[in-house]
Amino acid sequence: MQKRQTIRVGVIGAGRIGSLHAEHLATRIPEAEIVAVSDIRREAAERCARAWDIPEVYEAPGPMMVRDDIDAVLICSSTDTHAALIEQAADAGKHIFCEKPIDLEIARIDRALAAVSNAGVTLMVGFNRRFDHNFRRLRERVAGGDVGEPHLLHIISRDPAPPPLDYIKVSGGIFLDMTIHDFDMARYLMDSEVEELHAMGAVRVDPAIGKAGDLDTAVITMRFANGAIGTIDNSRQAVYGYDQRAEVFGSRGVVRSANDYPNTAMLADADGVRRDNPLYFFIERYTQSYVDELRAFIRSVTEGTPPPTTGEDGRIAILMGYAAKRSVAEARPVTMEEIEMEY
Amino acid sequence: MQKRQTIRVGVIGAGRIGSLHAEHLATRIPEAEIVAVSDIRREAAERCARAWDIPEVYEAPGPMMVRDDIDAVLICSSTDTHAALIEQAADAGKHIFCEKPIDLEIARIDRALAAVSNAGVTLMVGFNRRFDHNFRRLRERVAGGDVGEPHLLHIISRDPAPPPLDYIKVSGGIFLDMTIHDFDMARYLMDSEVEELHAMGAVRVDPAIGKAGDLDTAVITMRFANGAIGTIDNSRQAVYGYDQRAEVFGSRGVVRSANDYPNTAMLADADGVRRDNPLYFFIERYTQSYVDELRAFIRSVTEGTPPPTTGEDGRIAILMGYAAKRSVAEARPVTMEEIEMEY
Amino acid sequence: MQKRQTIRVGVIGAGRIGSLHAEHLATRIPEAEIVAVSDIRREAAERCARAWDIPEVYEAPGPMMVRDDIDAVLICSSTDTHAALIEQAADAGKHIFCEKPIDLEIARIDRALAAVSNAGVTLMVGFNRRFDHNFRRLRERVAGGDVGEPHLLHIISRDPAPPPLDYIKVSGGIFLDMTIHDFDMARYLMDSEVEELHAMGAVRVDPAIGKAGDLDTAVITMRFANGAIGTIDNSRQAVYGYDQRAEVFGSRGVVRSANDYPNTAMLADADGVRRDNPLYFFIERYTQSYVDELRAFIRSVTEGTPPPTTGEDGRIAILMGYAAKRSVAEARPVTMEEIEMEY
Amino acid sequence: MQKRQTIRVGVIGAGRIGSLHAEHLATRIPEAEIVAVSDIRREAAERCARAWDIPEVYEAPGPMMVRDDIDAVLICSSTDTHAALIEQAADAGKHIFCEKPIDLEIARIDRALAAVSNAGVTLMVGFNRRFDHNFRRLRERVAGGDVGEPHLLHIISRDPAPPPLDYIKVSGGIFLDMTIHDFDMARYLMDSEVEELHAMGAVRVDPAIGKAGDLDTAVITMRFANGAIGTIDNSRQAVYGYDQRAEVFGSRGVVRSANDYPNTAMLADADGVRRDNPLYFFIERYTQSYVDELRAFIRSVTEGTPPPTTGEDGRIAILMGYAAKRSVAEARPVTMEEIEMEY
Repeated sequence: MQKRQTIRVGVIGAGRIGSLHAEHLATRIPEAEIVAVSDIRREAAERCARAWDIPEVYEAPGPMMVRDDIDAVLICSSTDTHAALIEQAADAGKHIFCEKPIDLEIARIDRALAAVSNAGVTLMVGFNRRFDHNFRRLRERVAGGDVGEPHLLHIISRDPAPPPLDYIKVSGGIFLDMTIHDFDMARYLMDSEVEELHAMGAVRVDPAIGKAGDLDTAVITMRFANGAIGTIDNSRQAVYGYDQRAEVFGSRGVVRSANDYPNTAMLADADGVRRDNPLYFFIERYTQSYVDELRAFIRSVTEGTPPPTTGEDGRIAILMGYAAKRSVAEARPVTMEEIEMEY
Repeated sequence: MQKRQTIRVGVIGAGRIGSLHAEHLATRIPEAEIVAVSDIRREAAERCARAWDIPEVYEAPGPMMVRDDIDAVLICSSTDTHAALIEQAADAGKHIFCEKPIDLEIARIDRALAAVSNAGVTLMVGFNRRFDHNFRRLRERVAGGDVGEPHLLHIISRDPAPPPLDYIKVSGGIFLDMTIHDFDMARYLMDSEVEELHAMGAVRVDPAIGKAGDLDTAVITMRFANGAIGTIDNSRQAVYGYDQRAEVFGSRGVVRSANDYPNTAMLADADGVRRDNPLYFFIERYTQSYVDELRAFIRSVTEGTPPPTTGEDGRIAILMGYAAKRSVAEARPVTMEEIEMEY
Repeated sequence: MQKRQTIRVGVIGAGRIGSLHAEHLATRIPEAEIVAVSDIRREAAERCARAWDIPEVYEAPGPMMVRDDIDAVLICSSTDTHAALIEQAADAGKHIFCEKPIDLEIARIDRALAAVSNAGVTLMVGFNRRFDHNFRRLRERVAGGDVGEPHLLHIISRDPAPPPLDYIKVSGGIFLDMTIHDFDMARYLMDSEVEELHAMGAVRVDPAIGKAGDLDTAVITMRFANGAIGTIDNSRQAVYGYDQRAEVFGSRGVVRSANDYPNTAMLADADGVRRDNPLYFFIERYTQSYVDELRAFIRSVTEGTPPPTTGEDGRIAILMGYAAKRSVAEARPVTMEEIEMEY
Repeated sequence: MQKRQTIRVGVIGAGRIGSLHAEHLATRIPEAEIVAVSDIRREAAERCARAWDIPEVYEAPGPMMVRDDIDAVLICSSTDTHAALIEQAADAGKHIFCEKPIDLEIARIDRALAAVSNAGVTLMVGFNRRFDHNFRRLRERVAGGDVGEPHLLHIISRDPAPPPLDYIKVSGGIFLDMTIHDFDMARYLMDSEVEELHAMGAVRVDPAIGKAGDLDTAVITMRFANGAIGTIDNSRQAVYGYDQRAEVFGSRGVVRSANDYPNTAMLADADGVRRDNPLYFFIERYTQSYVDELRAFIRSVTEGTPPPTTGEDGRIAILMGYAAKRSVAEARPVTMEEIEMEY
């Protein structure tokens, strides 16, 4: 039997998210085929290859770049490698799916995006939450006019537990590491750019995070080009699990999403009514979104259409993170124009 | 038959809220007795008297102040009369329940509070929402430690429709007229003072409100003395009805309230699942809170204990409104200390 | 000041439900005026009179029957007195509101209804749940065609705790005492008569209830004249509080109601998500329905229109109770025709 | 690369459910490997083989029975073939997963179960709902004592649309085709056998179903060995989608499940609050249960432990269907003992 024409993919980085993408490509996306996987920890790459029948294993991604039988790469390695890998892949004519963030420095992002542009390849950035069933439905409702003109937006985004301190130290800080997803979500839900933002932060979860120079609790207020005002609420630790909700309020109504739960069983006894906590973290909550995001990437490559999340989306989210950092540092609202003009 | 000793009350102002209080005193609070009602529109006072068997009607509140058989007055007349009436009532030795706000000017508030203090009478300010079943339960949960140390607060407070423009023009603006309730709610739920706030406002509902110099949409971000960060979200027009919710997030969990609905009937048909909108406005939603607030006032008077909402609470909420106005005017965060030092 | 023409009411029985009705008449229904209250326990009548300013107190209801200035009586005394009091009141030309059940014996009910019919007075039976905000909305939805042709009905009706054994012994059994409300609700929601029913019962809550010859747990299945099938689920003890729900399913959709809660506060912590239990029992849950039921009675009397719940409604519910008893006794479905032909 | 020891499976029947199982085996269950697929429609088998890389395709299942390299078969062909295929597979020493029902005739079921017993192979019957996240959690709650002694059970089970009339005619009727799942669910949730049941049925959805000798609407009331009473509510057509809920009430509390929805987005506008309908049908709603059911089968085979749903479970559900049919036919409650003694 002959499979129809598929997109041949190389996966760079076989950690948690790389393995997840490999699984989804192998089992849910018949239009793609993984031909190689690389990881600087060879054992990780081999484990992934065994699990999903991937024929070739590398330690470095270089060999994939020169193989003619690879159409696209998935960049799932550590953040500091993203920009250079994008450049290499673009120069090699590969289509690129890259986990967020592209980089923590705008100059490097710009070089990477220029390479992509010159090569004419597809670059999609991994803002998976745009593909979540709940947020996608919010966006449909808003875009379809069900709430009229948007006036207010709220995004609640709280992790169940902070990452290791060592990670926090190289993460670029809460705004570039965690809020970046919410900045993108804000733009996605509102279909409008942020013109100005004000951030207020605190260290409430763990003093060690503060000593590492970061915040663990924050509220960002944004003014959008369409005139609406929005907030993002972040915490590194919601003890009841991943808290991921949004609400858009407008002239004709309001739409909001709730968390997803592992089951609907509701118990009432003498002590009250109760149910299990929401799904614990992104692997559980966003499974479907990761599949759909990859499907969208493969479709973009196959059909030659623009990807739903672009390099520019990745760049803007980083700039918003810069604005938030400055807003906290200088205790004032910051316009995006002011940030953009510096880059 | 002889009724036991009751608190004899004069009601000043027989408009919507004055009549509501009169009804509650007459029908739900056997410890109180209304002996007179006044309104500059005599017909309003007479209608109220007929409805609730009130023996005496006045046009001006003056005669009540000199009657020995009146223990307490309810000030439900227009805002510009509040401060002077508080002074008169205090000087006459009457206990006072006064609708919010005490006044829009701190100097006048301070004179009124001084009179109260000198006279040693009870003054309670009408922040009825503290007595709402939902918000009271949130406060109990937070005060009882169920969410641990508070980290984040959200208050959603949206009216179903804006008041008449003529009212808006003399209202002192959205922050002193509408947000004042939410400022008090924020202090109540957190049991901590706001140290700094930042406000972002917009005119989204009706350009005429903007022309009148006011806002109709706003987000206020607050930093509390306990280290937490909170937001208030206001709109003058939620077409689906009164939207009154809050959420407190902390180190051990989160607690949030939802809106109240006229019924629980849920319909599912080919078009989806649906239910009726939330209760329309404050009369419907906060009925029980108005009764409980008056009960608390009568109890304070009877037992000689401090009222649950004081003149100082009324004063602080106004100062927070000043801070919000300045924050919008000067596009920067404003500390409460900076505002307080000016008064 | 002169009150407009009111309905002058005598209240018979100043126990829990009589006092509740007196309160509602005194405080919520300006169209009515209580002129006398009676109770075989004089102290109970006096306490009620003091609380609601009722000018006259009796031990026996007889004197009320002969007073020309009494238009209507509320029969809130014990069940065994209902039928005779209805006859007396009807003969005296008084309009009658009577708590359910009219009587446990059809022959006595029939005599009472004949007296009412002969006198041409209004008789309303206290099926208060028809006036509940939730069930009323279900009925509106069903009657309005929102679920199309009804196919299935479910009523869940569970008390928080069983009544005293002494009461159970004279109650007529669970079907005549407790299910009677649900039989009426079934007819109300479906707007169709039950033609056949099958009951299955058990003693699960307390063996003493079984020893007293009664059941504490039951499921009744009914076939309606409109072709639909319905169930009623009863328990004498739901430890989480009063459980009062219904669901109507039809060709175009389904509508269902949920319980009412004392507040909407939802807490999530490491142990899960939880909220307070539903309102405890009928006094808390059905307060509004009791007011609206009396308003409907007073309106019927004032306007001379038929009451929303009639003596016939009371009679049918008792017959359904008979059918359920026989179904359990003979372990077979029983038709209503078979029961009706015996009376 | 060498895969670890896997269970080699032959799939019999490549229709909707057979293809679904093939997908799950191929993509989600690395412990199994599909070595062949058969379907009397060769094209269906070939399509399935292409999709999931299955090396061998047959029209008849016979060749699989004689292959030594096949450990287990999945019987997903039409109901009338199940019993004979179970016998063949058992005689050939294959482990067997069989879709429900085993057969519509007890005699044939008994022969099949005898063959399984003689061969000592594993037979699991496809009651997938036992593996549903919601029902599994209910069962855990009940088995864990969270509701105390069970008193009442309700199962709501409504399809979104009836199957084709041609299917209905050979289905054995609603009780053997549709309710069979609910009979099994009742036994699963209560962990107790049904001793007696009463069924009431109607034709409400489509008169053609009645003309075909079947019902489309039914309520079954059951008495369990543990003393509890339960109901099942069935309809062939819920226009709002698949309605699959259950509730267990007991001495210490109640637990109930709700439907699953495609998203949590809730819209409120001037017309009310609304959300999308529940998941449409079993493919959408029970996806995860189908995967977990197969995992359980493969685990039983691998570990040599009894399967969670046995041939006896399949047999009992059919007997309950017989009892329901007789109950309707003779309009009386029927004991399971009476049915069992006939077979």
